[in-house]
Amino acid sequence: MKQLKKPLPKVILIGAGRLAKHLGLRLKEMEVPVIQVFSRTKRKAQSLAKKLNCDATIDLKAISTKADLYILAVHDNAIGEVAAKLSSQKGLKDKLFVHTSGATPSTVFKPHFKHYGIFYPLQTFSTNRIPDFGQIPICIDARYAKDRKSLTVLAQELSDKVYPINDEQRAILHVAAVFVNNFSNHMFSIAAKIAEDNELPFDLLRPLLLETALKVQFNPPSKMQTGPAVRKDANTINQHLVYLEEHYLAYAALYQMLSESISK
Amino acid sequence: MKQLKKPLPKVILIGAGRLAKHLGLRLKEMEVPVIQVFSRTKRKAQSLAKKLNCDATIDLKAISTKADLYILAVHDNAIGEVAAKLSSQKGLKDKLFVHTSGATPSTVFKPHFKHYGIFYPLQTFSTNRIPDFGQIPICIDARYAKDRKSLTVLAQELSDKVYPINDEQRAILHVAAVFVNNFSNHMFSIAAKIAEDNELPFDLLRPLLLETALKVQFNPPSKMQTGPAVRKDANTINQHLVYLEEHYLAYAALYQMLSESISK
Repeated sequence: MKQLKKPLPKVILIGAGRLAKHLGLRLKEMEVPVIQVFSRTKRKAQSLAKKLNCDATIDLKAISTKADLYILAVHDNAIGEVAAKLSSQKGLKDKLFVHTSGATPSTVFKPHFKHYGIFYPLQTFSTNRIPDFGQIPICIDARYAKDRKSLTVLAQELSDKVYPINDEQRAILHVAAVFVNNFSNHMFSIAAKIAEDNELPFDLLRPLLLETALKVQFNPPSKMQTGPAVRKDANTINQHLVYLEEHYLAYAALYQMLSESISK
Repeated sequence: MKQLKKPLPKVILIGAGRLAKHLGLRLKEMEVPVIQVFSRTKRKAQSLAKKLNCDATIDLKAISTKADLYILAVHDNAIGEVAAKLSSQKGLKDKLFVHTSGATPSTVFKPHFKHYGIFYPLQTFSTNRIPDFGQIPICIDARYAKDRKSLTVLAQELSDKVYPINDEQRAILHVAAVFVNNFSNHMFSIAAKIAEDNELPFDLLRPLLLETALKVQFNPPSKMQTGPAVRKDANTINQHLVYLEEHYLAYAALYQMLSESISK
């Protein structure tokens, strides 16, 4: 039985990258009206607008004033500039503006708009993978309680996991996200390089990699640590360092620093 | 329709830790006869033997001579010692001995036995998780081609992914496995600590963590790299370093080294 519909905002998406695309598709799936898509790149604006069955524009001055919520899903360093340009347009001054960045404070909007906030889906989006959006944590913030409330209602339509996170917390969360995502992916890259340089297919390591991530879905990672460093197996560590120093000098330094960090 | 049964060896498991347990359960599941379990710890020997419906012993001298294959699933540094003790026993001299270690050369057996090899399931085993054993790569090696063949037949009963890997390759694979598993888990631990110190539940980061691992199941990790380091976003990197230097000095050094490694 369908529940009574909560009041949902009309949305305009500024940006048509991977995040904008997956967010837009989820908005459409949950019947939240997206009325326009902006991208500097015509092809991208049109492609996403077609998927969302709405207007496309490549001109910020042509952004409609008929929406309630303007979601800036653009590069971190473009948010301020886009906001400045939009603020010069009549009819947008009192709208609600949010961005989707983990690294940018909400106050980037302050010189330009009265109503602003954050709508940050904490996930990495690929072109060729469809995420389970209902499981993606969405971090919400807004300058005013009323806006925070309406963003929360919208976020809860899209995901089971909605968190109020202020600018300071979000900045810290972003540091942690770099460790979880960027640095662990770099570990995978190094492993792939070492393996493939030696005619060992990376497929040998993929099940281990996946299990490493699955294990910590229900356990704290610190309790799941295994390997030579945590068991202070100096013999194995030394063998590995001898090998790396000969073949991958830069990785040897990383190996040593990471092993010391683990064994502390 | 069940295929004609290939000739499978009678197995004795030396060791009753996590790997021995999951390997034993898989052997039983695939109807490979396990006739005895050894562990120095009576409780562990009996517990696993009960699961496998076979004999248990805590005495290496009581190891049966009726098996074809003796799988040493003990700590790396115990393999040589256990092999030495077993070699003094009449009736075992011509049996096939393998160990399950990624880090130990097969030649650890050379002073003690004629027939030896490797049976290395490349996975991390937890007490409370049941792995999909059919997807675990099993690395096989043996001194003699005939033994390699019979180990391959056995491994193919247990898993779809069986690889012949010699000692030198396995040592390199083990280095790569440390990066994939131990070091990435350490990245997760650091992220969890930073998050939880700041009253941010680690659950916020778990979907990102899992997606990071899922993305590289079908893509090369080097192509999946995202984040401030790979896009040379010095502004964000500096903000993160300022935060870490104030609150987590040791992590700041890691962050810097890893970012430099990524941006190379």
